Amino acid sequence: VLDEFSLIKQYFERPSTQSAKANPQLVKGIGDDCAILNVPQGCQLVFSIDTLVEGVHFPVDAKPEDIAWRLLGAAVSDLAAMGATPNHFTLALTLPELSNIWLKSFSENLAQAADHYQITLVGGDTTKGPLTLSVQVQGFVETGKALLRNGAQVDDVICVTGSLGDSRAGLSLLTSQEDSDIHRYLRKRFYRPQARVSTGLLINQYASACIDISDGLLADLGHILVSSDKGACIDSQVIPLSREIKAVAGDDALDWALTGGEDFELCFTVSATKWSLLQQALADTKHLVAISKIGTIKAESGIEIYKDAKWQSIAARGFNHFSS
Amino acid sequence: VLDEFSLIKQYFERPSTQSAKANPQLVKGIGDDCAILNVPQGCQLVFSIDTLVEGVHFPVDAKPEDIAWRLLGAAVSDLAAMGATPNHFTLALTLPELSNIWLKSFSENLAQAADHYQITLVGGDTTKGPLTLSVQVQGFVETGKALLRNGAQVDDVICVTGSLGDSRAGLSLLTSQEDSDIHRYLRKRFYRPQARVSTGLLINQYASACIDISDGLLADLGHILVSSDKGACIDSQVIPLSREIKAVAGDDALDWALTGGEDFELCFTVSATKWSLLQQALADTKHLVAISKIGTIKAESGIEIYKDAKWQSIAARGFNHFSS
Repeated sequence: VLDEFSLIKQYFERPSTQSAKANPQLVKGIGDDCAILNVPQGCQLVFSIDTLVEGVHFPVDAKPEDIAWRLLGAAVSDLAAMGATPNHFTLALTLPELSNIWLKSFSENLAQAADHYQITLVGGDTTKGPLTLSVQVQGFVETGKALLRNGAQVDDVICVTGSLGDSRAGLSLLTSQEDSDIHRYLRKRFYRPQARVSTGLLINQYASACIDISDGLLADLGHILVSSDKGACIDSQVIPLSREIKAVAGDDALDWALTGGEDFELCFTVSATKWSLLQQALADTKHLVAISKIGTIKAESGIEIYKDAKWQSIAARGFNHFSS
Repeated sequence: VLDEFSLIKQYFERPSTQSAKANPQLVKGIGDDCAILNVPQGCQLVFSIDTLVEGVHFPVDAKPEDIAWRLLGAAVSDLAAMGATPNHFTLALTLPELSNIWLKSFSENLAQAADHYQITLVGGDTTKGPLTLSVQVQGFVETGKALLRNGAQVDDVICVTGSLGDSRAGLSLLTSQEDSDIHRYLRKRFYRPQARVSTGLLINQYASACIDISDGLLADLGHILVSSDKGACIDSQVIPLSREIKAVAGDDALDWALTGGEDFELCFTVSATKWSLLQQALADTKHLVAISKIGTIKAESGIEIYKDAKWQSIAARGFNHFSS
């Protein structure tokens, strides 16, 4: 019998130095019917729930350590996209069987990922069933200062963090036996996405709209455009591509960068004025995450892309409609 | 392809009169990377995540309307056990296929249940996979006033709401073809548990400890006892049994009342002094939920039960160790 209580206690409860003490907002964590939290004065609570399903979001043979990092990275990315500070999360873990090896590895890596993002596990539910993991991440943002999707203005610069398409390339290599640096890098981009928390916090006072790229650049930029009632022009020549994706994907690299999901990079817009201020702030803080300007916001709906030496229209909604 | 965005919009977004407008704390609901919430001044946030899995928590042929009510009832019950006011929830819905009939019925009944508990759906994630539903319910409690498990004191009265064992009896009748009032009542107690929100709010200023009965009276009272470092004496003759469970369960009725899970009644403790004040308050407010005194807290660990005209010891942890 799967005893959820001993399970949660055994694997997920951590010394108070790492949880409650390190999280002064937390009044009660694991161990009662609910967790209890104080939201700091002058702050709003932001939160998002995310699910990973075995065989859908990751292969059946995925390692528990990879699942843990991917789960938390993908979820925390939603907080990053709001320009929020992560604070705590809950875990709903559905497991087909009680495997000590699996649980030890998963919980240890989840704790490492939680430390990395400075977010505390404060409660959960453990049930028997097909491997499914839901986390609700919660964080704080100064009241009224959350980055929304709906603030893009005409002539705003469109930016993305990091490089795009790597996760899609990594997905294509999951069954690859090759253990080269390139293949390892791309697989890691799939399994261990880096939520851009520090970038979200830095751009918070400059950006007019923001989203994290979970469905692919075109789809997620499309969400900003629909929410803001605007359109966009983007230049395919400046979409940031890693040398690794160029090495394995060749001509597919751009398509994957435009439509591949789950990079968990940020896509945001910023006015021309604030763009120069932001560049100064990036330099001043020696911000390590690359930020690329890929286009501008326009009044007319839809996305125009400069590709093969001409401007082409694509539907905002996604790459399905993109005839290249 | 399961398009989670249109899905969420189509089925779960509600007119603003029923969601945002009716929930002044909610700054942003469905439609961005995160929801945004203002916690009222002087209040703490309390929250809990709960999962239901098809074939584990409900049969494969369960109706979507029953699943919706059971899901929210079970989850909101955790808020009731804290003496909290429900405010909002998120839904992580994993579905094997996009069935319009299923989704329509589920979402309509979820909305009805949400109205019943005055709780607003503010976000979610929809994925493809074996039918699994997680909800995180959140509510408010006056700062420092949440009902915890660890406050039971020696000589406190132990109380339970409603009648116990009905859900377990209903479970035994799920495949029954009999459509009598008794069978319908018990099946409904399984599928449509009533979270005792109003009782939780009322007892908040009187009770010393509280828990909801999800694992069975002995197990959940056991959680209070372990958290409070106390023991209990309970009288089997005053455990509240419905006439329906007596009709179908006969000699099993008491066992089911003691160990059957998922009644989602409250079990709480209250000092002798406050017990009389509470009785007065129950009368003054014409509180409709029955409250039964079933025993008292003692200093020595473990549970003693008066049964078959003698006191017997049982392990606090559950009925497995109960030799009757």
